[in-house]
Amino acid sequence: MEPKGKKANESFVVMNELVLPNDTNVFGNLMGGRLMYWMDIAAAMAATKHCNTPCMTASVDNLSFKNPIKLGNVVHIEAHVTRAFNTSMEIFIKVWGEDNLHQYRYESNEAYFTFVALDPNHKPRLVPPVIPETEREQRLFEGALRRRQVRLILGGKMKPQDAEELKALFV
Amino acid sequence: MEPKGKKANESFVVMNELVLPNDTNVFGNLMGGRLMYWMDIAAAMAATKHCNTPCMTASVDNLSFKNPIKLGNVVHIEAHVTRAFNTSMEIFIKVWGEDNLHQYRYESNEAYFTFVALDPNHKPRLVPPVIPETEREQRLFEGALRRRQVRLILGGKMKPQDAEELKALFV
Amino acid sequence: MEPKGKKANESFVVMNELVLPNDTNVFGNLMGGRLMYWMDIAAAMAATKHCNTPCMTASVDNLSFKNPIKLGNVVHIEAHVTRAFNTSMEIFIKVWGEDNLHQYRYESNEAYFTFVALDPNHKPRLVPPVIPETEREQRLFEGALRRRQVRLILGGKMKPQDAEELKALFV
Amino acid sequence: MEPKGKKANESFVVMNELVLPNDTNVFGNLMGGRLMYWMDIAAAMAATKHCNTPCMTASVDNLSFKNPIKLGNVVHIEAHVTRAFNTSMEIFIKVWGEDNLHQYRYESNEAYFTFVALDPNHKPRLVPPVIPETEREQRLFEGALRRRQVRLILGGKMKPQDAEELKALFV
Amino acid sequence: MEPKGKKANESFVVMNELVLPNDTNVFGNLMGGRLMYWMDIAAAMAATKHCNTPCMTASVDNLSFKNPIKLGNVVHIEAHVTRAFNTSMEIFIKVWGEDNLHQYRYESNEAYFTFVALDPNHKPRLVPPVIPETEREQRLFEGALRRRQVRLILGGKMKPQDAEELKALFV
Amino acid sequence: MEPKGKKANESFVVMNELVLPNDTNVFGNLMGGRLMYWMDIAAAMAATKHCNTPCMTASVDNLSFKNPIKLGNVVHIEAHVTRAFNTSMEIFIKVWGEDNLHQYRYESNEAYFTFVALDPNHKPRLVPPVIPETEREQRLFEGALRRRQVRLILGGKMKPQDAEELKALFV
Repeated sequence: MEPKGKKANESFVVMNELVLPNDTNVFGNLMGGRLMYWMDIAAAMAATKHCNTPCMTASVDNLSFKNPIKLGNVVHIEAHVTRAFNTSMEIFIKVWGEDNLHQYRYESNEAYFTFVALDPNHKPRLVPPVIPETEREQRLFEGALRRRQVRLILGGKMKPQDAEELKALFV
Repeated sequence: MEPKGKKANESFVVMNELVLPNDTNVFGNLMGGRLMYWMDIAAAMAATKHCNTPCMTASVDNLSFKNPIKLGNVVHIEAHVTRAFNTSMEIFIKVWGEDNLHQYRYESNEAYFTFVALDPNHKPRLVPPVIPETEREQRLFEGALRRRQVRLILGGKMKPQDAEELKALFV
Repeated sequence: MEPKGKKANESFVVMNELVLPNDTNVFGNLMGGRLMYWMDIAAAMAATKHCNTPCMTASVDNLSFKNPIKLGNVVHIEAHVTRAFNTSMEIFIKVWGEDNLHQYRYESNEAYFTFVALDPNHKPRLVPPVIPETEREQRLFEGALRRRQVRLILGGKMKPQDAEELKALFV
Repeated sequence: MEPKGKKANESFVVMNELVLPNDTNVFGNLMGGRLMYWMDIAAAMAATKHCNTPCMTASVDNLSFKNPIKLGNVVHIEAHVTRAFNTSMEIFIKVWGEDNLHQYRYESNEAYFTFVALDPNHKPRLVPPVIPETEREQRLFEGALRRRQVRLILGGKMKPQDAEELKALFV
Repeated sequence: MEPKGKKANESFVVMNELVLPNDTNVFGNLMGGRLMYWMDIAAAMAATKHCNTPCMTASVDNLSFKNPIKLGNVVHIEAHVTRAFNTSMEIFIKVWGEDNLHQYRYESNEAYFTFVALDPNHKPRLVPPVIPETEREQRLFEGALRRRQVRLILGGKMKPQDAEELKALFV
Repeated sequence: MEPKGKKANESFVVMNELVLPNDTNVFGNLMGGRLMYWMDIAAAMAATKHCNTPCMTASVDNLSFKNPIKLGNVVHIEAHVTRAFNTSMEIFIKVWGEDNLHQYRYESNEAYFTFVALDPNHKPRLVPPVIPETEREQRLFEGALRRRQVRLILGGKMKPQDAEELKALFV
């Protein structure tokens, strides 16, 4: 029996974290690894809200850090599930830095994490399909297929020639 | 004046970390975000050993988690710089789990991080070229160009049609 | 010159934190002190969003813990400034526990923190008045006066007989 | 069978903590939330010494922060149980900052925490009465009744008109 | 000018710490390294109370762990300066575990740390002599000379034949 | 049945840690206690690699801190088992600081930790003998006997007169 679909925004999660001294490198900026730690927790919360079963990180797509976030600033993270593939979910995460003394908010990075849901025997388990509603959710939902092909190719699980949607981009 | 080249293995770094209770999820396995935190520190050490200037995380390539690492096990991380591109460096990171009670070592994941070197004004700064020596270092060095094209395309800074090396894969 | 007023919801902040092993007591429940640590950070973020100057905790009103939050559950915190008194702000904080495996959300506690804004010499500094909009914000705004009298009496800075609004309750 | 009484000073606990960089805000002062975390642990130790059963935080009375404690200074905390009410205990906590380089000790704050003792089924459990000995312990013991009325009123569990002892203060 | 002497008990420091999950090994017992971390902080506090200047760890004498301290138990640490040698101080530290549920207190270990006082140029600086008062303080004061010889021999800074006091023990 | 011997270098472990703000004292140098925490973990890893059973810290020999390690520098730790004594193992640990910006590596300290192996009932358990191969391993292997006598004397478990090897040094 296929699980009933769930709306994309039901898995929406917001995190706000303060950058403390131990989170920073010699420049006084947030270390990339510390940010990925928080992004992973935000993604785990969104994934669990969607499938209501324990789940764990399966993969992280390319991510690039645009603007460093400074000591004392706030890290603002938003995450929600974009699409489900049987037992896995793609989560979109967007991160801003907030300098509330200067009323200045700047983009830090965005990323796609993939989580897999597990049953009590630690085997993968079906998750509900995602129902996108807004135009933005729809766009993320559709792009998820293409990103999945990239993941499979980069993971060596699909031949580039078989990735029809990607192939079109290169020719 | 171009900086003098440096051998790939001069930047080689080993980290060993013990998985403690606070590093684990409800399955008693290392959380993905905590592992990325350590990988980022290992990569930062390797990058700094190569260029001898402060540097910071610019991007992280696709990474997928193969085997979960258990509470009480050891996380074994190896990292070194594979190639330099003017002011940035690609670092290859490989991670194993070690269960020393059962004398069992298993692959966890591998990844490519990119770091950028900064001068005292926080502007990008030239780094020495990498001199690969072993066959494996040579292979990583050559693949770095292709991975860089993927990064530029995924980051929206290069059109797929211009990525000659990648294009060949799809046709 | 009095600072221009700011809407109550402009200071609204949401935090979501995962309860990890080191946050728990022997019952496997979130320790009260760890929760107060997060509440203080949420309150500090809300206060800074309102006044855009550095500020620090001045006092915390009576708070009681209703339901323990369990290991692996999510702590959901919401905070916003209810009213300003010259150089200080009252922040209302509400906390829920979320058990996303059982789709169950329960009240944990609510509290009022007071923060004071500081100028570069670490002296108290005027903050903008709060403009309540919704009925709930209006109610919190009005109650703030009475809570302030309780604070002043409990802090020994006002005689009970002079607290007109409170006095009415007892007679 | 009522448990045998225990002297107030049998639950006396002293904590000394060093303020490290990650405990501080942008002023280089101890964050309020970090201090409450330590106060909660000191209170938990005192409560457990008194009742010898696991117990957990039930409520925290109004507390106000007088003097900020600086990075590198010592936080000195003293706590002991003042009075028991069937299954709960009131703990008095006093906090000083110590600047040992300048041989200077200053008051930070004081507070009353309430803890409840639990049996193995997590149900409230009788605790021994407190036997105050010194004049100061006697004064704290007596004030505990009045503070309890404030707590019950503020928690909405008692009507102000029924709090005889408090009522007298307002008329 | 030689600094005025200070009584041994003026540097007396008490720490009480709760053993949390992340402090424990696979047996659920406090890790030795975590205990040494706390002992070092207690010793630093005692040293600073004695000399009122910043100081840092110079050496740690042999220490052996007698009884493991369990998760949820309290680590009780007492420390004070036993004797000063120009610019360094010996600190005696004694550690107990406390199981307050079973009203059981057990010895964990004891140790001697040596700290050196530094002036603003980070050069060693004279510290006040210690004035022992009780018989126990007197005994620790006298033993400090012998322990110092052991330290110098083990550190390769003194020949065994020159350590008169120790030599007597072996013949 | 005596366990089969294992080569010294099979237990060899390398750790590299970055000194972060919260690891430092008022001088901006790594705190001694934090370093001992890491040394203990490195020693535990080496011991477990040698005996493949859980084990715990039994004692730490005299250790002295030569050069402070600075904020932002790397702590490089190497550890391996030098010799086994029935149920216990001596581990040799050497620590360097690395300032990769200045390509400067400096000795910090070295130490001997003793660990004991435990069976599932938490009773000491036989460990394999160590087979030294290089000249350095051979020297460490031989010195282990003498260091053990010092430990037994300092721990009050052997009379100085009975420590034949040590006695020779003093006469």
